[in-house]
Amino acid sequence: MHDRILAAVMPGPRRPIEIREFARPELPPGGALLRTARSEVCGTDVHLWHGRLAGVPYPIIPGHVSAGVLEEVRGPLRGIDGSDLAEGDRAVFFDVHRTCGRCRACTVHRTPTRCGARRVYGITDPASDGLFGGWSQAIYLEPGVATARLPDAVGFDDYIGGGCGLITAVHILERADVAPGDTVLVQGVGAVGLSAIALARLCGAGTILAIGAPESRLDLARAMGADRAYDLFTTPPAARLEDVRSLTHGEGVDVVIEAAGSARAVEEGLMLVRDGGRYVIAGHYTDVGPSQINAHQHINRKHLDIRGCWGSEVRHFLRALGILERHAADVPWRRIGERTYPLGGLNEALKDADAMRITKALVDPWAAAE
Amino acid sequence: MHDRILAAVMPGPRRPIEIREFARPELPPGGALLRTARSEVCGTDVHLWHGRLAGVPYPIIPGHVSAGVLEEVRGPLRGIDGSDLAEGDRAVFFDVHRTCGRCRACTVHRTPTRCGARRVYGITDPASDGLFGGWSQAIYLEPGVATARLPDAVGFDDYIGGGCGLITAVHILERADVAPGDTVLVQGVGAVGLSAIALARLCGAGTILAIGAPESRLDLARAMGADRAYDLFTTPPAARLEDVRSLTHGEGVDVVIEAAGSARAVEEGLMLVRDGGRYVIAGHYTDVGPSQINAHQHINRKHLDIRGCWGSEVRHFLRALGILERHAADVPWRRIGERTYPLGGLNEALKDADAMRITKALVDPWAAAE
Amino acid sequence: MHDRILAAVMPGPRRPIEIREFARPELPPGGALLRTARSEVCGTDVHLWHGRLAGVPYPIIPGHVSAGVLEEVRGPLRGIDGSDLAEGDRAVFFDVHRTCGRCRACTVHRTPTRCGARRVYGITDPASDGLFGGWSQAIYLEPGVATARLPDAVGFDDYIGGGCGLITAVHILERADVAPGDTVLVQGVGAVGLSAIALARLCGAGTILAIGAPESRLDLARAMGADRAYDLFTTPPAARLEDVRSLTHGEGVDVVIEAAGSARAVEEGLMLVRDGGRYVIAGHYTDVGPSQINAHQHINRKHLDIRGCWGSEVRHFLRALGILERHAADVPWRRIGERTYPLGGLNEALKDADAMRITKALVDPWAAAE
Amino acid sequence: MHDRILAAVMPGPRRPIEIREFARPELPPGGALLRTARSEVCGTDVHLWHGRLAGVPYPIIPGHVSAGVLEEVRGPLRGIDGSDLAEGDRAVFFDVHRTCGRCRACTVHRTPTRCGARRVYGITDPASDGLFGGWSQAIYLEPGVATARLPDAVGFDDYIGGGCGLITAVHILERADVAPGDTVLVQGVGAVGLSAIALARLCGAGTILAIGAPESRLDLARAMGADRAYDLFTTPPAARLEDVRSLTHGEGVDVVIEAAGSARAVEEGLMLVRDGGRYVIAGHYTDVGPSQINAHQHINRKHLDIRGCWGSEVRHFLRALGILERHAADVPWRRIGERTYPLGGLNEALKDADAMRITKALVDPWAAAE
Repeated sequence: MHDRILAAVMPGPRRPIEIREFARPELPPGGALLRTARSEVCGTDVHLWHGRLAGVPYPIIPGHVSAGVLEEVRGPLRGIDGSDLAEGDRAVFFDVHRTCGRCRACTVHRTPTRCGARRVYGITDPASDGLFGGWSQAIYLEPGVATARLPDAVGFDDYIGGGCGLITAVHILERADVAPGDTVLVQGVGAVGLSAIALARLCGAGTILAIGAPESRLDLARAMGADRAYDLFTTPPAARLEDVRSLTHGEGVDVVIEAAGSARAVEEGLMLVRDGGRYVIAGHYTDVGPSQINAHQHINRKHLDIRGCWGSEVRHFLRALGILERHAADVPWRRIGERTYPLGGLNEALKDADAMRITKALVDPWAAAE
Repeated sequence: MHDRILAAVMPGPRRPIEIREFARPELPPGGALLRTARSEVCGTDVHLWHGRLAGVPYPIIPGHVSAGVLEEVRGPLRGIDGSDLAEGDRAVFFDVHRTCGRCRACTVHRTPTRCGARRVYGITDPASDGLFGGWSQAIYLEPGVATARLPDAVGFDDYIGGGCGLITAVHILERADVAPGDTVLVQGVGAVGLSAIALARLCGAGTILAIGAPESRLDLARAMGADRAYDLFTTPPAARLEDVRSLTHGEGVDVVIEAAGSARAVEEGLMLVRDGGRYVIAGHYTDVGPSQINAHQHINRKHLDIRGCWGSEVRHFLRALGILERHAADVPWRRIGERTYPLGGLNEALKDADAMRITKALVDPWAAAE
Repeated sequence: MHDRILAAVMPGPRRPIEIREFARPELPPGGALLRTARSEVCGTDVHLWHGRLAGVPYPIIPGHVSAGVLEEVRGPLRGIDGSDLAEGDRAVFFDVHRTCGRCRACTVHRTPTRCGARRVYGITDPASDGLFGGWSQAIYLEPGVATARLPDAVGFDDYIGGGCGLITAVHILERADVAPGDTVLVQGVGAVGLSAIALARLCGAGTILAIGAPESRLDLARAMGADRAYDLFTTPPAARLEDVRSLTHGEGVDVVIEAAGSARAVEEGLMLVRDGGRYVIAGHYTDVGPSQINAHQHINRKHLDIRGCWGSEVRHFLRALGILERHAADVPWRRIGERTYPLGGLNEALKDADAMRITKALVDPWAAAE
Repeated sequence: MHDRILAAVMPGPRRPIEIREFARPELPPGGALLRTARSEVCGTDVHLWHGRLAGVPYPIIPGHVSAGVLEEVRGPLRGIDGSDLAEGDRAVFFDVHRTCGRCRACTVHRTPTRCGARRVYGITDPASDGLFGGWSQAIYLEPGVATARLPDAVGFDDYIGGGCGLITAVHILERADVAPGDTVLVQGVGAVGLSAIALARLCGAGTILAIGAPESRLDLARAMGADRAYDLFTTPPAARLEDVRSLTHGEGVDVVIEAAGSARAVEEGLMLVRDGGRYVIAGHYTDVGPSQINAHQHINRKHLDIRGCWGSEVRHFLRALGILERHAADVPWRRIGERTYPLGGLNEALKDADAMRITKALVDPWAAAE
């Protein structure tokens, strides 16, 4: 690697992505530099570009989940997976690089994803602080970042195909408490919803249903494990409800997972879940306005559990790695990442993702340079 | 007791209560007849009178939670509390007298309160079927009803002061998972809310807050254990929110319990609970229309648990009895039942309850006759 | 079917099985008669023959899990799976045919498997009461038994191959709370252990290990989903411990499931589970004497959860059916039932099972008669 | 305070405690110095003196839970309770001053009490590292220690009377899941057992029973909330069992808490808990040898949950503070600390504690010096 590193910078909301040159960082003890093999453009990046998240210190280098090869390691680097990591190793890292571990959210409530000091690669660090994002030829791994060896059985495209959606879905499924044989319905067939479908299948779910669009994603939903996938636009809600009931003794499903991010989806989800079931709401990463919810019909009399799910923790990252190691060959996470863009193609990638022309864009920061 | 038994009958929605005469029932083996000492007029009875519940087989004898003395017992009667019950014993019973024990709700989902065959004294049985309600000089205890001895330390007025509100609150607190030191806020200071306050205190809650009206009930809320009680009308929502935050490190409370039955209460409750907290919705026994809920702000990003709570089960009834036995002397459940009405006063009692002039009316079916 | 029905009767402990003739029962409303296609000889039957269970009303017709075709149905028969069952349908039933639904175990503690009135086909009913066991050409389904249609995709041999071991294992896995990626070790590779392995795999477990014997069962354990299977006799405990630690960051596995029924297994399991893990003890259906357990090393300092698991409930039966419907083609439950015996071969079947020459004997009560 | 600080040092197992002089430490940013008002001699200190804990870096300054007044604070000091702490404030701190927050125990398994890097005041730091123990006129609070203001309503003697036993008991009760009305039996009436009794009462337990000795502690157990306290030596086990059953429908209690630290206690506890109940094992902080446990009778058929409980976390410390703030006036924690010793009296204190002549010795490090 040269001393100058190219990275794609998002200067501010709705402004074009620019390629800038950064100096190769000096590593402190315990630090490392990862030569980026793949990063991703996920839904959060589209939100970032629209300026929908509060408190983002633009300009930033986006790209929170990434994978690569350790280019330089200063001092011994012990992986969170128990491995000893060395230069030349294929490695990945958990994108949440700091939580304080001391505040009430971290220690008393055990909700570290709500820690006020939480820092996430690709989102919370200004470009002026260094290479804290994956849309860059190299990523600075500061001391203490949870790093792990990428298992041999997992390709870079497998890992990034799953990406942050898979890690989020591991948390969602933890909240959903899916038992073998449970019927599960997933709302939304983006990267999170698709991984939720695959994980529900791996958890032994019985019938798995999905609602979403477009048709190409519904095909992928079926490939990930859905028994039936309803087109959001061509199958009307009443028909979906009737069909779901016909498959579930007239009751509705045991578990609904919301990964759609629409106010209407929440209203529909409450109709589709059975009395005494669970409804995990995980797709509302930005504010799309209120839903109309009848507390009598849909919460109280239903004796329902509704569970919000925010972010992910190290254990979800490690679980995702283990799942990929075992299942990358038989679950098509790789297909979620439909197209790979060079750094110079990221404006296009954002537009493609925003228009839902692709499920997820992959980033190869060296493609243009080679 | 004479062969003719007087009971107050609700002929239909918004029609005056009538006193009618019933024949003393023939008892099958395992059946019993309870001479009613006290019954109650609870919020459900007001809903019944307004016709807000679906499928009620009017005319009915209302009164679901009641207490009395065993007048006649046919065959051995073993209490669900392990006691051997005999004529002359002070006794109470669980008002849900039938669930099928065979359906999917009962056996698979373990949600017997959602069993389609569920039968409840005072609500689901037509007067033509017999003495299945407490607004009567005697109540027919059919074989299999969960009956228990009323502990010596518990007066009839203690038991009915707690009444169905206490039993419901036992279920609510089970759903709320209150740990010692948790901050708890209760919305609503009717019979359910007041008992929820008392139980939160018995569960070791730290700061307990309440919102409601009128002032006399707020006084009672404080007597039941609330540290602070906000007047629903004179303390504006913004002031309540600010005060709650000032008491909770700016976070909101660990647990909110909704026992208010208003759509606005649900919206406010979501503001008052902390990230990662629990919100039990238990006051919406009838449909009062939708709430506006922002899934991003109040569920997803909050990583919140919302738990509906419907009805109660035998174990809640037994827990309530044990709690009364130990705490009737120091928790003023008796004060919830503010006034006792004879059978001939039940039209007035319903009006008083509907107008919130009293928290709960007690019924003494023998008062007029003596 | 003729009016006379042949059944194999166990007259008492260690006495030869006899074939006796029974009258075809008169059916009450809601009752049914099932022509037996397959029943099983499971570990409990061996215990019954040795007289190791207390309170068994010999002579009995053994055989608790069975499958067949509805020969006669009196009145409408609604399946617990929601199906409408008719004569000629392939059907199965939950072997626990009565729990009282009224006692403290059933209602207060929610532990119906500890109900004193519990009745189980093949175990608790004397032969003089009728056809309450599967080692018979026909089985009497009394009103209220939880019956279900056998899904088309599930053969009789699939269902009985899983049998009571599968239903028990569904309960075990519920207690084990296996999350995707958890490492699981199963002690014992009998019918219960083998099904536990398969279910752990279906729950998304990561590495699955097994300990048992003989080698043929270890092969089957691998076919059911174990990554590694240790021979109980040829791999010494110290070697097993070292290998398990080498696979689990030196920690031990997340979950151990005991399905071995030996006192030593319990002692070893406590060494193999990681700190903060879960240990489900499910193989001790009879008393084999005490284990030596160091509470400091293996419970207290380990911060361990140990969970006993007794019997099964209707929901486990239904879950098992749904799992078989989806997975009978890819999980070799059928292979657990190694050999099928006629009624006249049951003395031999018991001996074969006792000597561990076979994992499970299947019973075809019509084989001899045809 | 002078520049020289006196502390009591434990040079090694079974060697006399010595008073040594230490230099007043230089404070780094975020550090503080606490002038000790009270510390304690708890059961762990007795174990330390006997050399029963592995890996202790003698010589050490014992005393893990302590309270005092902030003598010097360098830089802003934000309490874990949200307070801003300043010199002159009465303050307390969580004795576990370091866990790594990065290892698998901390992040993946969420069992920080099993973190290999865990450091505890009074136990894990050699005296040569500085004032890391409460048997000293001043305690060094290193940056990051979880510190909190001692509430005005809580005296130093209240806080240390509860001490580490109370904080441990908060964790125990979290594991025990006591619901209002549960019957609870506590084995052992030392500092942990007494606090467990008080907390069970605060959690709304119904009947609370205790087993222990001597009689003076049983009196205290009753004052803390036990309804009945059995003398370990004068009431034989069979009589205790019979009495417990007579109070619990013949079933045994819902929850047993073991805080006795004897192998026999574990065996007895398994007899006293009901089927489907919970047994928390928390008293085995050192190895006293194995218990004989029959897995069939006492775990498997009982469908029992056994839960080990090790150490405590910040949230338990904060909960304990909140509980003391509300209940120090009505729960006699203060009585647990029977006698206060100066630094020069600690050899005697250890002997008194070891001989069970006192429940807990308090330490006033300034008593001798003033």
